[in-house]
Amino acid sequence: MPLNAPRIVMKFGGTSVADLDRIRNVAKTVKKQVEAGCEVTVVVSAMSGVTNQLVGYCESLNPLFDPCEYDSIVATGEQVTSGLLAIALQTLGVKSRSWAGWQIPILTDDAHSKARIKSIDSSKLIECMQSGVVPVVAGFQGVDDNGRVATLGRGGSDTSAVALAASMQATRCDIYTDVDGIYTTDPRIVKKAKRISAIAYEEMLELASVGAKVLQTRSVELAMKEQVRVQVLSSFDDNPAPMENSLPGSLVVSEDEIMEKEQVTGIAYSLNEAKVVIKDIPDHPGIAASVFAPLARENVNVDMIVQSSGSNQKTDMTFTVPKTDLLNVQKILEREREHIGFAEMLADDDVVKISVIGIGMRSHTGVANTMFKTLAERSINVQVISTSEIKVSVLVAAEYVELAVRALHTAYGLDAQ
Amino acid sequence: MPLNAPRIVMKFGGTSVADLDRIRNVAKTVKKQVEAGCEVTVVVSAMSGVTNQLVGYCESLNPLFDPCEYDSIVATGEQVTSGLLAIALQTLGVKSRSWAGWQIPILTDDAHSKARIKSIDSSKLIECMQSGVVPVVAGFQGVDDNGRVATLGRGGSDTSAVALAASMQATRCDIYTDVDGIYTTDPRIVKKAKRISAIAYEEMLELASVGAKVLQTRSVELAMKEQVRVQVLSSFDDNPAPMENSLPGSLVVSEDEIMEKEQVTGIAYSLNEAKVVIKDIPDHPGIAASVFAPLARENVNVDMIVQSSGSNQKTDMTFTVPKTDLLNVQKILEREREHIGFAEMLADDDVVKISVIGIGMRSHTGVANTMFKTLAERSINVQVISTSEIKVSVLVAAEYVELAVRALHTAYGLDAQ
Repeated sequence: MPLNAPRIVMKFGGTSVADLDRIRNVAKTVKKQVEAGCEVTVVVSAMSGVTNQLVGYCESLNPLFDPCEYDSIVATGEQVTSGLLAIALQTLGVKSRSWAGWQIPILTDDAHSKARIKSIDSSKLIECMQSGVVPVVAGFQGVDDNGRVATLGRGGSDTSAVALAASMQATRCDIYTDVDGIYTTDPRIVKKAKRISAIAYEEMLELASVGAKVLQTRSVELAMKEQVRVQVLSSFDDNPAPMENSLPGSLVVSEDEIMEKEQVTGIAYSLNEAKVVIKDIPDHPGIAASVFAPLARENVNVDMIVQSSGSNQKTDMTFTVPKTDLLNVQKILEREREHIGFAEMLADDDVVKISVIGIGMRSHTGVANTMFKTLAERSINVQVISTSEIKVSVLVAAEYVELAVRALHTAYGLDAQ
Repeated sequence: MPLNAPRIVMKFGGTSVADLDRIRNVAKTVKKQVEAGCEVTVVVSAMSGVTNQLVGYCESLNPLFDPCEYDSIVATGEQVTSGLLAIALQTLGVKSRSWAGWQIPILTDDAHSKARIKSIDSSKLIECMQSGVVPVVAGFQGVDDNGRVATLGRGGSDTSAVALAASMQATRCDIYTDVDGIYTTDPRIVKKAKRISAIAYEEMLELASVGAKVLQTRSVELAMKEQVRVQVLSSFDDNPAPMENSLPGSLVVSEDEIMEKEQVTGIAYSLNEAKVVIKDIPDHPGIAASVFAPLARENVNVDMIVQSSGSNQKTDMTFTVPKTDLLNVQKILEREREHIGFAEMLADDDVVKISVIGIGMRSHTGVANTMFKTLAERSINVQVISTSEIKVSVLVAAEYVELAVRALHTAYGLDAQ
C-alpha cells in the first residue's frame, strides 16, 4: 500500500446487492478500487426486499412493536449482506471480513428504529484495511450504550457510510445506487436532463427534499457538517475504477469546490403537495399563529405560505401541506373555525410544486423573473410563490408538471447538447 | 416471584417457530409457564427453511466459504426469531427481550461453523428473569475471543439450551419439538410404540446415534456431563403447563432417577449402514490395523466389526461403514489390496442395523438371546452382531426392517395396551 493511498468508503444500496449475481458484481467493483491502490471500506444495505419482509413480520405480530426488538430483527438484513459480500470478495482473491455495527463499534443514542450515531471508533477498521483486509460493514445500524442493536431509520446505510468516511477521514464516500448520478431534473420527464458533475451540499438538500430520491437527506446533512466529499455512482455501469480526474458520477461537495457556479443547477418537482385556502379571516396581529399553531401541535408540516390582503380588515391565507395530511388538516381547521373566524376553506390537491435550485442565484439576479416569464409564456398560472436564498418555488396546477419542468429546463440552459 | 421458583429453560425448534402463527402459539406456551410461577428463559432456533436458505447463499458464492462469514450470516436466523418471539410475548402482556449470543455472552472456541461453548456468563439473564422479564435467547450461537460470531453446528440450539440450563442451574431444560417425546421405537413402523416417560442419558445417546432424531447428540452428552434434566415435549400439543407431577413428554435424566429399569427401553434401526466383507486375509497379528488404519486416516467411521476364523491361516473380516462412505471405502481398500493381502472384497448396502437398548440389560440376562430367538422364529438371518453394556445390535437384510422391529417390540413387552 503506497503512502497516502486514497482512502475510500464505498456504499452499495439494496438493489445493488439484490441477489448473488449482483453481489458478485459489487465484489468486482470493489476489487478494481483495491487494485487501483485505494484503502477501501465497504458499507452495504440489506438485499432488496429483505428489510420489508422483516418489518412486515414485526407489524403483523404487533403494529405497536417494541422498537428495540424491531432493530435487532431488521439489522440482520445488512449483516447477511456484509457476510455474503466478504465471501464474494475472498472468492476473487481479495482478503475481506464483515463487521456488524456492534463489532466496530458504531455507538448510537437509544432512539430505537431512528437512532442517531453518537460516535464511531474506526480504529479497528483502519487496522483491518492497513493489514490488507477489506472491511465490509453492515450499514443502517449501531449499538446503544446498553449493548442493544439500534438502526438509523430507512435509508440509514447512506448515513452509516458518510459517518464512517468522516470518522476515518476518507478521501471520498462513494454511494453506489441504481442511477448513475444526480440529474438536472427527472430524466423521465426531460429526455435532455444532464448528469450534474458537481453539486453543493445545500443544493443537494433542496433537490432531495423536493423530490430527488438518490441520497438520504440525513446523510447529506452529515456530509455537509463533516465536509465529506460524496460521489453518487451507478453500480450497474461497468465503470472503470473512478479516479479523481474522470469521475463518472455526481460529486456532492462544498460550494468552494465548485468552480463554475451555474445560475440554476437543477429543477425539482413534488406532486406530494396540497393547497389550502382560508378566506376572509379577520386581519389582526396573531392571526397566522391561530391558524398554524393547531397544525404544528399535530405535527403537520406546512410549507409554502402566502397571505394576501383583502378588503374590510379581512385577509386570505394560502398554504401547502403534504397531500397525505390534507384530510386531517381540514378536520383540524374546521374544529378551529370559530376561534380563527374564517368564512370559507378551499382545498386543492391537484397541484405540483416546482422549484429551481442553485447556489449561483446568490450572485445572479433575474432567476425568479426568468421563471415567471417562462411560465407566463405557456399560460401557466402561478398560484403560490416561495423563495429562499438558493431556491424559487411555485405552485401550479398538476396538469402542467411536464410542460413547466421542460420549459424551465430549457430556459435555464440546462438541456444536454 | 416466590422463593425457590422453578427455573426452566424452554427451547423451541425450527418447525415450532416456522411462521408467525406458530410463534404466537409458542408465546402462549411460554406465558403458561410464567403464570405457573416459573422463572423462564427461552431459546429459539431459526424459522424452518431460513438456515437452509442462508447456507445455500454461502455455498453458491463459494463451496469453500470462510466459516467465520458463514457463522455471522447463518446466526441471523435465530436473531430474527428471538426478536419476533419477544414481540409476541410482549403482545400477550409478558415482559420480554431478545438476547443474541454475543450480548450474554456465550463464549465459544474459534472452530467456526462447529464451535464448542467454552463458558456462559448467565448473570445478565438471571438478572433479567428476576426483574420479571423473559429472556429469549438466539440459539445455535456464541461469540469467540475475537468478538466474532460463532455457531455450534446444525441442531446446535439444543446444545445452547442445555448449556444455558447448566449455567443457570435450571430445574429443567424443556425441548419443544414436532414430536411429543421419545418413543420405544419408530411409530411409523410400530403403531403400538409407546412414549417413554423417562430415559437415561446413556440410553438416549444410543437411541439418537442409531436413528432417533429428537435431540442433538452433543446436547445429550452435555446434559449427562452437567446433570441437566431434559424434557422432550411437543410444541403442537395444547398441553397444560407441564408440572413435575404429570409431565406430558419424555424426561432424559440420570439413571438414578429412573425407578423402573426395563430390560429394554427402546428399539432403534438405521438404514444408513453398508456392509463390507474382506475374504481370505493372511491371519497374522496386526492385520486388523492394516485394514482399519487407512480408513481412519480418511475419517471413515467403522462401526460393527467381526472377524471369523477361516482355514489355512486365512481369515475373513466383516464390518459396517456409513452408506455414504461405501464407494470411498471400496476405493481405499482396493488401493491397499496388496498391502493387506486379501483375495476378495464384497460390499452390500442393502442392510439394516437393528439395536435393542436398555440400561436394565446390565442386571438382566438373556436380552441378547431373546433377540436371536425372535429373529430366528421369523427366519431372519443375522449377518453381524455387536454388543455393548446397554445395547445389542444386529445387521440383517434391509427387507426385514419392519418385520424385525415389530417382532422385537412385542417380544420385549414394549407394545402399548
